Amino acid sequence: MSKIEQHSKPLTDIFIRQLGDLFGDRLHFGEAMRQQHGSSESHFDTMLPDAVVFPHSTEEVVALVKLCVAAKVPVVPFGAGTSVEGNVTPVCGGVCIDLSEMNNILSVNPEDLDCTVQAGVRREELNEYLRDKGVFFPIDPGANATIGGMASTRASGTNAVRYGTMREAILSLRVVTPDGRDIRTSGRARKSAAGYDITRLMIGAEGTLGIITEITLRLHGIPEVISSAVCSFDTIDGAVDTVVQSIQLGVPLARVEILDDVQMKAVNLWSKLNYPELTTLFFEFHGSETNVKEQIEIVSSVAADNGGGDFQWSNLPEERTKLWRARHEAYYAALGLKPGSVGWPTDVCVPLGRLAECIQLTKADLRKATIPATILGHVGDGNFHVIFVLDPNNPDDLIEAESLNTRMIERALSMNGTCTGEHGIGLGKQDWLKKELGETVEVMRTIKRALDPHNLFNPGKIFSFD
Amino acid sequence: MSKIEQHSKPLTDIFIRQLGDLFGDRLHFGEAMRQQHGSSESHFDTMLPDAVVFPHSTEEVVALVKLCVAAKVPVVPFGAGTSVEGNVTPVCGGVCIDLSEMNNILSVNPEDLDCTVQAGVRREELNEYLRDKGVFFPIDPGANATIGGMASTRASGTNAVRYGTMREAILSLRVVTPDGRDIRTSGRARKSAAGYDITRLMIGAEGTLGIITEITLRLHGIPEVISSAVCSFDTIDGAVDTVVQSIQLGVPLARVEILDDVQMKAVNLWSKLNYPELTTLFFEFHGSETNVKEQIEIVSSVAADNGGGDFQWSNLPEERTKLWRARHEAYYAALGLKPGSVGWPTDVCVPLGRLAECIQLTKADLRKATIPATILGHVGDGNFHVIFVLDPNNPDDLIEAESLNTRMIERALSMNGTCTGEHGIGLGKQDWLKKELGETVEVMRTIKRALDPHNLFNPGKIFSFD
Repeated sequence: MSKIEQHSKPLTDIFIRQLGDLFGDRLHFGEAMRQQHGSSESHFDTMLPDAVVFPHSTEEVVALVKLCVAAKVPVVPFGAGTSVEGNVTPVCGGVCIDLSEMNNILSVNPEDLDCTVQAGVRREELNEYLRDKGVFFPIDPGANATIGGMASTRASGTNAVRYGTMREAILSLRVVTPDGRDIRTSGRARKSAAGYDITRLMIGAEGTLGIITEITLRLHGIPEVISSAVCSFDTIDGAVDTVVQSIQLGVPLARVEILDDVQMKAVNLWSKLNYPELTTLFFEFHGSETNVKEQIEIVSSVAADNGGGDFQWSNLPEERTKLWRARHEAYYAALGLKPGSVGWPTDVCVPLGRLAECIQLTKADLRKATIPATILGHVGDGNFHVIFVLDPNNPDDLIEAESLNTRMIERALSMNGTCTGEHGIGLGKQDWLKKELGETVEVMRTIKRALDPHNLFNPGKIFSFD
Repeated sequence: MSKIEQHSKPLTDIFIRQLGDLFGDRLHFGEAMRQQHGSSESHFDTMLPDAVVFPHSTEEVVALVKLCVAAKVPVVPFGAGTSVEGNVTPVCGGVCIDLSEMNNILSVNPEDLDCTVQAGVRREELNEYLRDKGVFFPIDPGANATIGGMASTRASGTNAVRYGTMREAILSLRVVTPDGRDIRTSGRARKSAAGYDITRLMIGAEGTLGIITEITLRLHGIPEVISSAVCSFDTIDGAVDTVVQSIQLGVPLARVEILDDVQMKAVNLWSKLNYPELTTLFFEFHGSETNVKEQIEIVSSVAADNGGGDFQWSNLPEERTKLWRARHEAYYAALGLKPGSVGWPTDVCVPLGRLAECIQLTKADLRKATIPATILGHVGDGNFHVIFVLDPNNPDDLIEAESLNTRMIERALSMNGTCTGEHGIGLGKQDWLKKELGETVEVMRTIKRALDPHNLFNPGKIFSFD
């Protein structure tokens, strides 16, 4: 459905032979495999890579990169394929590096509160592995993404309000650069003032500056008590103000999600639930028993002052899962509003004090629209999503969504916000990046040209090379 | 006392005239002024800049940068001059840009928990200004540094265990780049996935990639209760284990500082106090009354299990200040151990689980040394300082300190730590940076060459250009 054309040139026989020597039966040219690595979770056109490889080590990635750079063939890293801005669409063809078989957990140091994993480890598997060690990895973008992919898009999600984003969660990276170097960007110390922050430069670079192969993550002790709560509000303002005031009061909310009335309706239909079809907040509190009790008391009282209804709450694991089910199934529930539809999840992030107004105005637009669209967001960060529900056979749907998206992003930028809180730029938000950051994009381009002079690392993403 | 030679070439008459046209009586060539901007707080030789200017706006910095780049004259940004690794020593001469007169607080948004300040604002003045707005800026490196300087060295200090370092504290920067661009690296949203993290690239770059002129900072609500406590331990292990176990239990310590027996002795002498001359922890707890009470209960009980003595504690402002006086005066107290001495404060940072061992081994070295040396540290980050107390007229002192420093850094690196937790690289730690990060330094150098091709922005810092 997008308007971007693919430009690729065929691989040479000699290059194909060299690839085969390196990867043997882990080199694929089959249509189905290429389809799977060229399609998008959202509304972007599928574009096929010329080949797909499954490396098992950083050394293999180095060898591959050297081969590709010598032959001027693009490389596109691929994790779980759950990004939504066309971040891994191979617009110039080339070799897709699927890192999913680099999925070893290399070390866990509970006493240092850190671990090191290969890029293909998925976050749910990691947390399963960590559970009996008393520690956990908090970042939860919804999808069961790979840690490498989450690093590359600077992902965040529901826990970021308390635990930060991938930017804060990563201590160090192992990266293969376009000149074939195998670097470690930092040690395992919790802070360092040792030169340029190459770790943070690679986080969010979407594979355009290097291929992340290993990640050292900060972990957190599993809280003594985890408690979940759900509360409905008559107004969006009431819900947002409840969160902002709680944060100002210093309540260390672990998660706080907003779902609008349309999203709640979709969830009730999809998951056979019977929540009030009103703006709803989903909370999670972490801490000691006393502390969680106090947090809930403060938030309940703030909510009551802001027109909130009763708190449904629980601290038993199964009940918590049930309570949060509405939030976890939100995306598929939204798609359920129109059978056979395609979803386009977009997001913006604004300063906290502007969030209520930004959601209100966006919602006023959506009410007038013909396509279904739901709102859900990570209120504590000032970040919210709109999921546009599109008929893939009706081009007018996409046109309408584009216009709504434009209005929403322009509004967020006018409030000093960003065109993307957590999905990255990919293909979808390049024009907005320029509008948001102006000449800062020239600084990015200068860095890209210096580190990847032939534009071979995930080319065509974030900004144009020339 | 350092061995680095200055290389500078005289300014031309025409350049001096152009500078004068721009800055009028804010352009200085006087010896005293140049001395003040070329001397170091620690053991580095004084080197004079050729001129000192005091800009009042980003536009003036842009004009100056264009002038200097055209004439190939180096520029060295200067804040409060409190850095300790020779970070602003003008090793190639040139123009020192003193930003202290760019000291306006441009906006405070308590509802967004952020503010924007010019680079020359000092942290104590900022917090004084913020006090009646119910918010505060937590980063406290000890010295009353400028916010611009703190950004440039990626400073942290006593509060980082809870509130993070300058890396986490900054939302956005206004920066003048070597090609004379005036860029803003981000909006004011609390998170963003919009392209390369130029904000973080500039933080800790020590002015080698751009001159920071404005900073947008995250703020925090002033806690309902602030409580301080002091506790002595028979062993270093006992003190460090108390902190690590408390963090693992999820206690959100706001500050926790370790002072060794030598440092406590120095403090007693200097500040006329009578603390036990043992390893001592200084704590600060932030939260609601219930929450702070609970934190203190947990930490007291952990401390008792680890051989800690009684807690002296207070939550009244004046008493807290008195209690913490020992910590705040630590540096000057250390210098007091040898009248007429020069201090060399160095630091390393290691994974939490290795901290006790690292301090123990360092202390064993110091016990055998002839020069006085104290240890104090930000235990919650795995970060500690040694202050070497040197006789400036005895070259053997420096030689001994260098050898002790070498052993300490090698030890920290062998533990997967860093050669600098918070002081930056400057002149003093360039060899260690290479040892710590290997080829990652090549990536840094490539970025430097791309953004500052004539090596004019604070040249000679962090790594060699060629």
